[in-house]
Amino acid sequence: MTGVIRIFGIDPGSAATGWGVIDCAGSRLAYVASGVIRTKRAAPHAQKLGAIFETLTAFLEEYSPDEAAVEETFVNASPRDALVLGQARGVALLAPSLTGLPVSEYAANSVKKSVVGKGHADKRQVAAMVKVLLPKCGDVAGDEADALAVAICHAHHGTFRRLEAS
Amino acid sequence: MTGVIRIFGIDPGSAATGWGVIDCAGSRLAYVASGVIRTKRAAPHAQKLGAIFETLTAFLEEYSPDEAAVEETFVNASPRDALVLGQARGVALLAPSLTGLPVSEYAANSVKKSVVGKGHADKRQVAAMVKVLLPKCGDVAGDEADALAVAICHAHHGTFRRLEAS
Repeated sequence: MTGVIRIFGIDPGSAATGWGVIDCAGSRLAYVASGVIRTKRAAPHAQKLGAIFETLTAFLEEYSPDEAAVEETFVNASPRDALVLGQARGVALLAPSLTGLPVSEYAANSVKKSVVGKGHADKRQVAAMVKVLLPKCGDVAGDEADALAVAICHAHHGTFRRLEAS
Repeated sequence: MTGVIRIFGIDPGSAATGWGVIDCAGSRLAYVASGVIRTKRAAPHAQKLGAIFETLTAFLEEYSPDEAAVEETFVNASPRDALVLGQARGVALLAPSLTGLPVSEYAANSVKKSVVGKGHADKRQVAAMVKVLLPKCGDVAGDEADALAVAICHAHHGTFRRLEAS
């Protein structure tokens, strides 16, 4: 593909952080890599955040993306749970920012609308559409599928931006 | 002072993050430095978090503390506000953790009880007692005083720990 833009998507969570890398050339998308970072439930916050940061930073170095996109997690939680989720989200925003990447944020509904076509799709519908759009991604689900979905959403928004700019 | 332990205290917030450094030798405390990191209100999250991280990391390198303490912010906010606060808190926990420091967390009530003697003290009482305990700190207030307070709280807890261990 010519004019390829590589996008690093992140879906941060308290227990698991999904990440996914795709290449985008115009409206053509290609799967590159994806995974889930899980931390030990009993580990202190600082140690968990350190593990998320170091793993994300290693994958950012390995795949050298051009842009990053992070899901704006829908907050349907207690303030206490939202605080803990925010901590993971802070690290997910920080890691690509420190490597000099532009970081975009997308609301969960925008991601679903971009990938499935409606803002209230469930997780299985998102995963199913990710597999249609990125056939080589294999059997992804949960946070990993969501991270690829936010990368796809960013690709769609980027295509519009670039069409508008041309 | 012999057997000095240097403590780096952090009070993270959405708009401003306080930091304070003290030396502790047994029950003797000495002020070293403190300040507040403010970020531009309109800047994107990722950029603000990058600025907090880089400033904290620079001060951690400058003052080479032995231990770090972060206030467990009292969450009296909407889930949305708690999420944004959590992002700043994630970075405040991450920065000392990445430099290899042990990071302790203290609830706001524990900090107030340790510094003022009661868990429901207001911000002015905390600042006034910080000035009594650290006469050289000057006219600190708000997040800066709170960061010194969490460092003092950690010093008190550490003294107990060390007395128990001896």
